[in-house]
Amino acid sequence: MSSLQIFGVPGLPEIVEGTDLGAAVLSAAQAAGTPIESGDVVVVTSKIVSKAEGRTVELNDVDPSPFAREWSERWEKDPAVTEIVLREAKRIVRQLGPVLITETHHGFVCANSGVDQSSSGAHGRAVLLPVDSDASARGIRTTFLAAGVDAAVIISDTFGRAWREGQTDIAIGVAGIDPIYSYIGQVDPHGHEFKVQAICTADELAGAAELVKGNVSRVPVAVIRGFAFEVDDTATIAPVLRDQSRDLFR
Amino acid sequence: MSSLQIFGVPGLPEIVEGTDLGAAVLSAAQAAGTPIESGDVVVVTSKIVSKAEGRTVELNDVDPSPFAREWSERWEKDPAVTEIVLREAKRIVRQLGPVLITETHHGFVCANSGVDQSSSGAHGRAVLLPVDSDASARGIRTTFLAAGVDAAVIISDTFGRAWREGQTDIAIGVAGIDPIYSYIGQVDPHGHEFKVQAICTADELAGAAELVKGNVSRVPVAVIRGFAFEVDDTATIAPVLRDQSRDLFR
Repeated sequence: MSSLQIFGVPGLPEIVEGTDLGAAVLSAAQAAGTPIESGDVVVVTSKIVSKAEGRTVELNDVDPSPFAREWSERWEKDPAVTEIVLREAKRIVRQLGPVLITETHHGFVCANSGVDQSSSGAHGRAVLLPVDSDASARGIRTTFLAAGVDAAVIISDTFGRAWREGQTDIAIGVAGIDPIYSYIGQVDPHGHEFKVQAICTADELAGAAELVKGNVSRVPVAVIRGFAFEVDDTATIAPVLRDQSRDLFR
Repeated sequence: MSSLQIFGVPGLPEIVEGTDLGAAVLSAAQAAGTPIESGDVVVVTSKIVSKAEGRTVELNDVDPSPFAREWSERWEKDPAVTEIVLREAKRIVRQLGPVLITETHHGFVCANSGVDQSSSGAHGRAVLLPVDSDASARGIRTTFLAAGVDAAVIISDTFGRAWREGQTDIAIGVAGIDPIYSYIGQVDPHGHEFKVQAICTADELAGAAELVKGNVSRVPVAVIRGFAFEVDDTATIAPVLRDQSRDLFR
């Protein structure tokens, strides 16, 4: 019977631009007595990836457009943050009252282009999503591989959803693991062939990791041990991003 | 450091109308050498709940409406199934090509009102969502409590989402555990107060359970051990269902 174990990696240093995240995770996990092992899935919160990659913006350096200024004034938002949100967006999906749902340049549909002001390490700074979270994940995985550890990596973020209250952690980048597991063509115990079912296991893994990471306790990395998957070094998050032509809600 | 363990409950009997699910789960978990313990979260796939509650429909007994017939013919669907889907719906949210997204009488937004034809135990039968999954969860929890086991229960189903490909398991009913954990009012390590963040932990728990349950291997129940939560016997899934007035995508 398959069994999963999920634990956080405590004791990471404060992450600053240039921090080698892969090395930091390996070393903190080792120090905690739970070294990363081959076959593990390591889930890393995007916020520390962004910090390590310098994806932060000083709000003072931002010159908001008239549109950003007017809307922000009306809804008591910081116009510099609004400007950054708009710059990170390919398209505004919904704008109603103070809510701004955008499609980012990556193709993620989320509130405020994923721009975060809550824990930027200082007032006056916003944290943006990584430029390419698949590349970020690959970088961390490469460091693991160099240390002899064949572990997959998922970069996660906390997104809202349509129809349901409460946010969940989902995957925005992967390395070494396909984000979707398809049952199509397989047969259930009653002999019915699955015609449509494909599970976004990457999102389920990211959500599972959140259950131990939390957001207050400052454990931005979790390890999932015992999840069976085939290593795939060509994997990216792209198959998860529904094309607009197939999307009934965009 | 918090650590979670997740394992499936193998060896459940074939579930038929009238099966005492709580007792079946307790006994199968015991037989597998991993008895349910107080503090566990037990995630039960809705399909077996529906079967135990007799929420199945013989397709031969269904008289499809002209609307159901016409649409089904056009898209090569079974008109009896379409008729059931429509009866389970409060409202059609999107109907485009062969895709039918509905809001169920419970308030869930999902494909085909959650009606399942893939594993009904026989051709010619459809499995509907439980009438009241909170009540189903409470029934199972009550059986656990009577056996001296104070475990929470989540009823899960596999739903699609807007914007992202791949389905995930989410919660449609709860007992003993609040579905949403709110950070609002708490303070992050940098002194910022969380103003908006509330996590739908019930959905993350349901998704995490799916990672061990799978759909082919026929393990419809999983146990999550080590998740810290306060027991709440007034909890329901209602807070997860976004009110239409607050929903930008319905």
